[in-house]
Amino acid sequence: MSALHRFFVGSEAVAAGRARLGGDQARQIADVLRLSVGDHVVLVRDGQEMEVRLDAIGPSSVQGVVVERRAARSEPRIRLTLALPLLRGDRSEEVIEAVTQLGVSRIVPFTSERSVVRELSPAKRARWERIARESAETARRGMVPDIGPLVTWNELFDVLELPVVVAWEGEKERPLRKAIPLNSLVASVVIGPEGGLSEDEIAVATEQEAHVVSLGPRNLRSETAAVAAVAQILAILET
Amino acid sequence: MSALHRFFVGSEAVAAGRARLGGDQARQIADVLRLSVGDHVVLVRDGQEMEVRLDAIGPSSVQGVVVERRAARSEPRIRLTLALPLLRGDRSEEVIEAVTQLGVSRIVPFTSERSVVRELSPAKRARWERIARESAETARRGMVPDIGPLVTWNELFDVLELPVVVAWEGEKERPLRKAIPLNSLVASVVIGPEGGLSEDEIAVATEQEAHVVSLGPRNLRSETAAVAAVAQILAILET
Repeated sequence: MSALHRFFVGSEAVAAGRARLGGDQARQIADVLRLSVGDHVVLVRDGQEMEVRLDAIGPSSVQGVVVERRAARSEPRIRLTLALPLLRGDRSEEVIEAVTQLGVSRIVPFTSERSVVRELSPAKRARWERIARESAETARRGMVPDIGPLVTWNELFDVLELPVVVAWEGEKERPLRKAIPLNSLVASVVIGPEGGLSEDEIAVATEQEAHVVSLGPRNLRSETAAVAAVAQILAILET
Repeated sequence: MSALHRFFVGSEAVAAGRARLGGDQARQIADVLRLSVGDHVVLVRDGQEMEVRLDAIGPSSVQGVVVERRAARSEPRIRLTLALPLLRGDRSEEVIEAVTQLGVSRIVPFTSERSVVRELSPAKRARWERIARESAETARRGMVPDIGPLVTWNELFDVLELPVVVAWEGEKERPLRKAIPLNSLVASVVIGPEGGLSEDEIAVATEQEAHVVSLGPRNLRSETAAVAAVAQILAILET
């Protein structure tokens, strides 16, 4: 089973036990993967996997019959949101790839006082969404993380579910693992931009019930901090 | 203090309370950072920091007087080795950058049955060493991780200190955090290459007392697995 190719699909792709794919997915099955009639693929939607036996393959339309439905077993029981500052170059994309594999449910891009990059163009957002979908497929997840609208620091805490932890280099004592209740089914983690978060911004966060935490005494780049924090939180809450 | 520039130095750089830098470091201080007589820098060696007030600056030689010595406070108390397969493209370099920030003491490159990349050229090793040194400077560490000789899977366990954990996608139950004794001061973690580790290789590892662990039900790329495992182990053992 584990070797079957997986595709995230919309609600229109499966009806009355039959599946139909078009566009890039049909082209990939027909021309890139060169699958044949009788081969199986897995379609994934909202945490459900549908195994499909292909019975008609063309470059613009691929069809098949659903032979099994099951819940995706790979989704974490916790719904974790990462609030990610816009980072320079392709560093945001590296983070999106890694944290999607690790299991985040949502990524909320934001700008803050010391952000260097301040705009998320439609082309860049489309690239982020493609990376999230492909990484979710590679990781064999049951859903693609949602990428939220770009917000400012002052708007950020309105869109994050509690408990919220903010990783800040100015916090020297409280480790991340002591700030999140072990029975949480929801959590949010905020990472600062390249230039760090200001004292004023930290004051806004704590007013909004966020816990400010340390990721340790070493100075981490934003992208390392994001991956390390997500890995730690999922390890704490999932096992 | 935290804004002072840091340089890792050899034993020849400081004698009788005076510091002398040449080569790239002198050029960087004189021409890139454009520091002046009276400015301070921090020289770091073997976990010790020496704060130096500069009193002579030229493009090929910079000198100064040591005004304070102290232990680097940023080193983890645990000595952690990462055994890292050679990865395609610059993915090994991304891992070296991140795990150096996180706090590994040693990186051991290896090849195994399904390794795609099988050689570590002298030029590539030199680049890895530069990345480790620069990342250690950025992270404000007290030492630069050592990059060991390239070994094969059969040689690997002879050079790793116990306890050793091997992250393997075939292990479904035992989480990483339950495999490492909480009072360990030494540990090693092994990540598989792009193509994974074989059953035979896992048998070799368990014969050599390694604990085979799961990083969770999602399929992680090698580089994400390496960063996540190192972050988890340091979080478990440091706090």
